Amino acid sequence: MNSDERWFPSHLRELGTAECLKLLAAHQVGMVAYCDDQGPVVLPVNYALDHGCVLIQISPHSTLARCLRATPASFQLDEFDDYTRTGWSVLVRGDAAYVESADLPTDDDRPHTWAEGQRTLHVRITPRDISGRRLLPV
Amino acid sequence: MNSDERWFPSHLRELGTAECLKLLAAHQVGMVAYCDDQGPVVLPVNYALDHGCVLIQISPHSTLARCLRATPASFQLDEFDDYTRTGWSVLVRGDAAYVESADLPTDDDRPHTWAEGQRTLHVRITPRDISGRRLLPV
Repeated sequence: MNSDERWFPSHLRELGTAECLKLLAAHQVGMVAYCDDQGPVVLPVNYALDHGCVLIQISPHSTLARCLRATPASFQLDEFDDYTRTGWSVLVRGDAAYVESADLPTDDDRPHTWAEGQRTLHVRITPRDISGRRLLPV
Repeated sequence: MNSDERWFPSHLRELGTAECLKLLAAHQVGMVAYCDDQGPVVLPVNYALDHGCVLIQISPHSTLARCLRATPASFQLDEFDDYTRTGWSVLVRGDAAYVESADLPTDDDRPHTWAEGQRTLHVRITPRDISGRRLLPV
C-alpha cells in the first residue's frame, strides 16, 4: 500500500507487522471480508491468532461457509475514539481455506465465540499482506 | 441475508433499516470496503450520513479514489464490548460514485475528517441493502 493510500494523511504512523500481530493477538472480535458478485461483504466474527494466521469458527451451513471455502479474504480490526479522534487499524489480506480437524490448535487456542450455535467449521485466513496504521493525537 | 448467515446464531436480534440508519447517523468513523483483483480491501474513514447515503471525503490522488470511482462498495460500522460480549454491527451494501460539488450538502453536513490533508474528493455510497444485528446479553 502506498503512502498516498493513507486514509489519514497526517499524524499517522504506519505499523510494522510485529505490532499488527500484537494487536491481533490482543483482541477477540474482528471483521472478515470477502467478495461476492455484488461486491464486498464485511461481517464481525470472533477469531484467534494461530501461528500468524487468523482462525475463525463458523456454521458449516452458512453462506459465510460457502463463500470462504477457498477464496481471497481479508480480516480487519480497529479501535477509534470519538473524543480524542485517535485510533488504529490493522488489515490482513490473504486467502481463506477450510481447516481440517487434525490441523487445529488445542481448544484453548481456538476462537471463543460469544454466542451459542453450531459452529463446527474452522476457516483459516493465511496472510499475504499485513498492514496497519495508528492515528496519533495532534 | 438468510438467518443462517448470522455470525452470532443466538441472543441475536436483526436490526431494521431505521435503527441501522440511526446508528450510522450517530457515529463518525466506519469502514469502507471495495474489491480489487486480490480480494476485499477494508479501510477506516470518517463519514457523514447524507439523505440515507454514506458520504466520505478522500484524497483525489489516492488508490482509494481510483478504486471507488464507480464500483460496488460496502460500508460497515460496529461496536463490541469484550467484557459483556455484546455489541452491534451495521452493513451497507451499495455502489460508490464520485459526487460533484453542486450535489454536496452544506459544510456542516459533510464528513469531518480527523486528520489534516488534501481530501477534496467526495464519494457517495448509495445503499442497495442495509442490514444490522445486535448481540444481546445472555
